[in-house]
Amino acid sequence: MMKLTVKLGSRSYPIYIGAGLLGDASLLAAIVAGKKVCVVTNETIAPLYLDKVSVLLGRDADCVVILPDGEQHKHLRSLEVIFDKLLEAKLNRSSLLLALGGGVIGDMTGFAAACYQRGIDFIQVPTTLLAQVDSSVGGKTGVNHPLGKNMIGAFHQPRAVIIDTDTLKTLPGRELAAGLAEVIKYGLIADKAFFSWLEQNIAALNQCDALSLTYAIRRSCEIKADVVAKDETEGGIRAILNLGHTFGHAIEAKQGYGNWLHGEAVAAGMVMAVDLSCRLGWLEPGVLARSVALLQAANLPVKAPKGMAVEDFLEAMSVDKKNVEGKIRLVLLKALGEACVTDAFDQQLMRSVIRDNIAV
Amino acid sequence: MMKLTVKLGSRSYPIYIGAGLLGDASLLAAIVAGKKVCVVTNETIAPLYLDKVSVLLGRDADCVVILPDGEQHKHLRSLEVIFDKLLEAKLNRSSLLLALGGGVIGDMTGFAAACYQRGIDFIQVPTTLLAQVDSSVGGKTGVNHPLGKNMIGAFHQPRAVIIDTDTLKTLPGRELAAGLAEVIKYGLIADKAFFSWLEQNIAALNQCDALSLTYAIRRSCEIKADVVAKDETEGGIRAILNLGHTFGHAIEAKQGYGNWLHGEAVAAGMVMAVDLSCRLGWLEPGVLARSVALLQAANLPVKAPKGMAVEDFLEAMSVDKKNVEGKIRLVLLKALGEACVTDAFDQQLMRSVIRDNIAV
Repeated sequence: MMKLTVKLGSRSYPIYIGAGLLGDASLLAAIVAGKKVCVVTNETIAPLYLDKVSVLLGRDADCVVILPDGEQHKHLRSLEVIFDKLLEAKLNRSSLLLALGGGVIGDMTGFAAACYQRGIDFIQVPTTLLAQVDSSVGGKTGVNHPLGKNMIGAFHQPRAVIIDTDTLKTLPGRELAAGLAEVIKYGLIADKAFFSWLEQNIAALNQCDALSLTYAIRRSCEIKADVVAKDETEGGIRAILNLGHTFGHAIEAKQGYGNWLHGEAVAAGMVMAVDLSCRLGWLEPGVLARSVALLQAANLPVKAPKGMAVEDFLEAMSVDKKNVEGKIRLVLLKALGEACVTDAFDQQLMRSVIRDNIAV
Repeated sequence: MMKLTVKLGSRSYPIYIGAGLLGDASLLAAIVAGKKVCVVTNETIAPLYLDKVSVLLGRDADCVVILPDGEQHKHLRSLEVIFDKLLEAKLNRSSLLLALGGGVIGDMTGFAAACYQRGIDFIQVPTTLLAQVDSSVGGKTGVNHPLGKNMIGAFHQPRAVIIDTDTLKTLPGRELAAGLAEVIKYGLIADKAFFSWLEQNIAALNQCDALSLTYAIRRSCEIKADVVAKDETEGGIRAILNLGHTFGHAIEAKQGYGNWLHGEAVAAGMVMAVDLSCRLGWLEPGVLARSVALLQAANLPVKAPKGMAVEDFLEAMSVDKKNVEGKIRLVLLKALGEACVTDAFDQQLMRSVIRDNIAV
């Protein structure tokens, strides 16, 4: 087992990474002692891991909320289901929520914890690669709106993140690939050597090799924890974690949440961002080819879905949270392993890049 | 015009109090410059003051949300209406909300601002006495749940509070009285001399005398700002602001939100808290008689409504946010002008006090 720390002063918290951690009751003993705990999970994960969470907690949870599985359920109405249950079970300000599942469960549970009685503690137990390397760390919580992804939410840090790599054994291949999209993102934005390591180890990762996955999760969490510690509420640098996400959100919104996985949409979106960076002359053209090859090797899409129009992207971009006073801003690369947030690009060039990266 | 400051470090903000402030475009000029603004108000207030807000802003708002009037609409579904409008009007992270109305509008607008794109700024323009002396100051925001009042919300401080005392000229008498309940509360919990001043000036306040009201608002805001500065997120001392509220919430929940005004329920609740404090021997009996007399002089109820049972109160109290690990805690008085949060009272005595203060 290894332990990283997200350094945020009095709100610092540990990330534990290792095989079989759900069986270790010592990790959370101090945090849950004497407190009511509600586990929030979904219909897919509950039969697989709910029993094991009782081992992690050292006892059964005081209440359990089981939501339907999928991004299309990440909305305010699902939050109401959680709130109903918390009030029925009389959870109070010193009670705890525990998110058991992927990014959707983690984001909704964290947001419910942020709002219940104006804020209670919560714990992240991510069971997908995407949640383990990205959404469970950093305190971004929220739900979607028909007009935009994650438009309603809060910054609310967990008390602890427990990453049991054994949970990846039950993860469908398509979900594993979606998680690898975010892993590849960390190489692109912050670590050229890690990008090269991924190129060399992608076959092992696809086969769920435990050692390779553990290293990839650890390096991803280190980079994320580092960026979050520098800029918790995304006043600046943190936005680089959204490489490809502005384009990706447009794909998700247009296709209907849940039809394309978040990581798949981000993969196609990152190709657009890298392509635009290359055409601006900021990156040597080889980086685009390497990025496309690595994403394809990870079984990810590299084009937006057929039938989408440039305007679909512009519409979604117009409400992007990174925008400042109406100006569209994007995360682009100044070099492999070095990202920036900028509006210094030509709109026509951006349109061309989008158009050229939609499947025909 | 006078200006108070709520001292919260980088989140400090001014409270402006005076007649005709809605006509002063200088107050918000620096805050709203170059930003989109959405005004949230209700059907009663919009025809009265929406035009004047354009003067305050120096221009028309970019969008306006007009909700139905009343506590019964303070729920998550009303928030969805606000979010829909904000996204349609493409408000972004640097945009602002402005709450124009009473406590319900202020609480919902503040919570919408806390959650929209994970948090944007907002301004309070309270138009009821209750909102001016209490709910607009201190950053408590939220909505009700059928199982408990203000159970879902956030701590989110406004950027400024504009109290135009002229707006009280259109306030119905029953609403004025409801506001006076919170004013009387400040005397009871924190300022014996202010309590005496209220006894001497209650007739002038009932008649909406401008000078008396301005003094009462100022002293109330001073006490509230002082308590909030000491304990922003209610880890301790701030809870004294809830004198009578635990009992009052039970009345509101049982009667259906909106049938009893919040201030009316708090008035009857404060009598219970003062009565219990007297029976515990903490207060001389004369304080109960004085409190009842002052509340009655302010045209407020001093008994819970006929037909309520002791169990209705216990049920509502069991989910009160002040409780710690299942123990009911109440705000009681150690002396006139001095409150404490405690569980050091006999449950049977509390039951007797509740029973004796329900109308027959």
